Amino acid sequence: MANEKADALRITRRDEDYSRWYLDIVERAKLAEDSNVRGCMIIRPEGYAIWENMQLILDKMFKDTDHVNAYFPLFIPVSFFSKEAQHVSGFAKECAVVTHHRLKLDEDGQIGVDPDAELGEPLVVRPTSETIIWSAYRNWIQSYRDLPILLNQWANICRWEMRTKPFLRTTEFLWQEGHTAHATPEEAEVEAKQMLGVYKTFVEQYLSIPVFAGRKTENEKFPGAEHTYTIETMTQDRRAIQVGTSHNLGTTFSKAFDVTYLAADGTRQYPFATSWGITTRLIGSLIMVHSDDKGFICPPKIAPLQVIGVPIYRKEAEKEKVISCFQQIQKRFKELGAFSFKLDDRENLSPGFKFNDWELKGIPLRLEIGLRDMEKNNAVLVRRDTGEKIIIPQDELESRILELLNEIQDNLFKKAQEFQRQHTYTISTYEEFKNSIENKPGFYIAYFDGSPDDEEKIKEETKATSRCIPLEQEGTMGKCFYTGKSTNQQVIFARAY
Amino acid sequence: MANEKADALRITRRDEDYSRWYLDIVERAKLAEDSNVRGCMIIRPEGYAIWENMQLILDKMFKDTDHVNAYFPLFIPVSFFSKEAQHVSGFAKECAVVTHHRLKLDEDGQIGVDPDAELGEPLVVRPTSETIIWSAYRNWIQSYRDLPILLNQWANICRWEMRTKPFLRTTEFLWQEGHTAHATPEEAEVEAKQMLGVYKTFVEQYLSIPVFAGRKTENEKFPGAEHTYTIETMTQDRRAIQVGTSHNLGTTFSKAFDVTYLAADGTRQYPFATSWGITTRLIGSLIMVHSDDKGFICPPKIAPLQVIGVPIYRKEAEKEKVISCFQQIQKRFKELGAFSFKLDDRENLSPGFKFNDWELKGIPLRLEIGLRDMEKNNAVLVRRDTGEKIIIPQDELESRILELLNEIQDNLFKKAQEFQRQHTYTISTYEEFKNSIENKPGFYIAYFDGSPDDEEKIKEETKATSRCIPLEQEGTMGKCFYTGKSTNQQVIFARAY
Repeated sequence: MANEKADALRITRRDEDYSRWYLDIVERAKLAEDSNVRGCMIIRPEGYAIWENMQLILDKMFKDTDHVNAYFPLFIPVSFFSKEAQHVSGFAKECAVVTHHRLKLDEDGQIGVDPDAELGEPLVVRPTSETIIWSAYRNWIQSYRDLPILLNQWANICRWEMRTKPFLRTTEFLWQEGHTAHATPEEAEVEAKQMLGVYKTFVEQYLSIPVFAGRKTENEKFPGAEHTYTIETMTQDRRAIQVGTSHNLGTTFSKAFDVTYLAADGTRQYPFATSWGITTRLIGSLIMVHSDDKGFICPPKIAPLQVIGVPIYRKEAEKEKVISCFQQIQKRFKELGAFSFKLDDRENLSPGFKFNDWELKGIPLRLEIGLRDMEKNNAVLVRRDTGEKIIIPQDELESRILELLNEIQDNLFKKAQEFQRQHTYTISTYEEFKNSIENKPGFYIAYFDGSPDDEEKIKEETKATSRCIPLEQEGTMGKCFYTGKSTNQQVIFARAY
Repeated sequence: MANEKADALRITRRDEDYSRWYLDIVERAKLAEDSNVRGCMIIRPEGYAIWENMQLILDKMFKDTDHVNAYFPLFIPVSFFSKEAQHVSGFAKECAVVTHHRLKLDEDGQIGVDPDAELGEPLVVRPTSETIIWSAYRNWIQSYRDLPILLNQWANICRWEMRTKPFLRTTEFLWQEGHTAHATPEEAEVEAKQMLGVYKTFVEQYLSIPVFAGRKTENEKFPGAEHTYTIETMTQDRRAIQVGTSHNLGTTFSKAFDVTYLAADGTRQYPFATSWGITTRLIGSLIMVHSDDKGFICPPKIAPLQVIGVPIYRKEAEKEKVISCFQQIQKRFKELGAFSFKLDDRENLSPGFKFNDWELKGIPLRLEIGLRDMEKNNAVLVRRDTGEKIIIPQDELESRILELLNEIQDNLFKKAQEFQRQHTYTISTYEEFKNSIENKPGFYIAYFDGSPDDEEKIKEETKATSRCIPLEQEGTMGKCFYTGKSTNQQVIFARAY
């Protein structure tokens, strides 16, 4: 029994097998699990609570920037897809297609598709909603007075993936997708950049994940977009992970769906579009960026549970006193209402087991109190991020906890930022890059003005892709690391998830 | 232009065409619209904001009763369905089936299903999640210590409907579905009834919709349930509408998915299940129960916007003064933060047009101020439910608005309750019932202990179904209105949506 319990807490170390370590955390911290449906995950309560917190914060940020929510159909007729060539070629190869609307029991009592219930036109389960939404905007947009439309949707999305990994790449995932319509290209550009800024603020301030913000190259942009903006961060195995994108779609979709508006000057014009999204992938990014060999680490601002109390006692007589001390403290915490707290009063489990269990689950702070602490009116706080033990008088608990939660939040950001800094290199020749990316993974900043074909060759030869053209450029001239031509454009290359 | 505007506000009267009236409100109040996808609706921002408020309140009620949220796959393998016979026969005839995972461009550039990408096993788009969730519970439930599981999911659902009506019956809709597992049948029964109670409280207190709470007969219960509990209300055309259900599923799904737990006494036992749900149908019910010939009426506690301000002025000089008065008031309201308020400062629209527009949209209270009111330091409040005009000193605005919002909330409930009372009849013979249901629609309470076949015949002959066996029974004996046998069970019959 004891071994079985200990086993449930042991996870693979990062240096043993990074990929296995990631999967162990997902499973053992009960964030998600594979379902019996190929490539689809079950988001367990512990994982979903993080998503709920993300939704709460982001939804407020969207509303503060004047967006409203709506809901569009899950199913998209195949004919809508064909209306935009780039879009269809980007998504057609990985979508779930509904072809029938009924099942039928055969004579053997086996159930299967009813051949008499075939749909006239197959329906695609939405891989993204530009087409269905712009088909509706055709009715919504008549005059310049109807603009801008600033809309967001929280939804499930389906992209048929061959190789899946919980949170990072699954057939079904959850996301939000903003879809806006504007009278001018300038407004659309401002919107696309504004929402990238919202994402950067959210990811950096709430998830403690430092990002590079930039523009995607032609090869890497969204199918149908004029520009795709992205925020990218670095995992602990020094690969890139895209954590949010915002697209300036220009008139691609208004033209495809023949949406025009009557401008103030009496002319008919095509409106300009943006779309932007973040997904449940962010939960995976929290593991990839912050977590360690003991398990998950959740930044305090996004953690469903911030402080876990573990009573320390040996005998039954001690137990009662310690628990009663904790109950008084719990009451104080509840009255203050400034952070979430739970008391682990589970029976028949040692304090050591509980420590490991909550460390695995990533709770930012642990509060321990035993009889000896009580005699001195003390309490022990243990930080999940550093393991540091802090002994303090019990009456300072609230203020010290609030301070520590902030310190943990900051420390996680700084640590990740420092890690990213250490593994971000500038590189000037392609030969050097080819060796370096293999032996020393990381972000490589290079002068680059190669063609889409050049980029494709780089990808084939190095498995690295251009991650972004950072918005902040030094502005200096240099020699393209691939073509040798003179350019002022620097681009980040990395291997990516 | 003026006519065009007036047209946009005119809706069919209830006595002209009740069904058209309903659809007019859905469309003109911009709550939802038909999409280009058969039977699927677009929930527009005005409608979705109501759903968001419902989610916020219900989610808190669920968490206050110790439930947590999670997320399970959209797709359910057909083989899962076959595991429970009643369940599959209940849902197989109306489900969207995914058979392929790729589209393909043919030589003519036409896009269609890629025949090489057929799935080994077809997937059903979830019409409800008992099967996929209980398949997961098999791994989650090992010992009595793992019970109860108290879980809820917010999700989209697909049931292929032939005749659809926005909100009331659509191919795709939004809902929440609770799925719990318990060690004893008693616990499951308590849970099923508790959640029916949560729904009743929510619907009556927040939506001002009075309901009958009861149990469904065998014919009407959920496929696979032991008992189905329901809350039912009456529409203004005196039909029944089911607004929430809660099922005691017994061991139907634990047996179908072979889920057992090790009990404290060392034996292996099947856990007991419940499931319960409410849907976006509730938005349609708000129309059906409260709204009138001027448009939508939204109860204040669920209304995204509670008070609309309409400035009254004729000349430009007046306008500035009135708007500035409103801005000061808006500032006061914002500081108080006790209700939502918006100022309608749209140009080139008459006050009369604005009155009609906001009445159509169902905003509970209108605040009007013109120069003459300002001179006396007065303001005019107009109730959406009664049309009553109330002139009050401006410094009493906040307190009076809060009072009125409560009064409107109560009045809507009482009005609907009185209507329901007036059209609820007791009936003692089937002959009488057949005539009466045709000429005098309503709820008919009858002693009934007929068989499922009897009920089926009643349905065929009268288009009425048993709505519920009310939880509150008089307990007196009477003669079954159909069989003539003696029984103490009273049942409500009605035609239903």
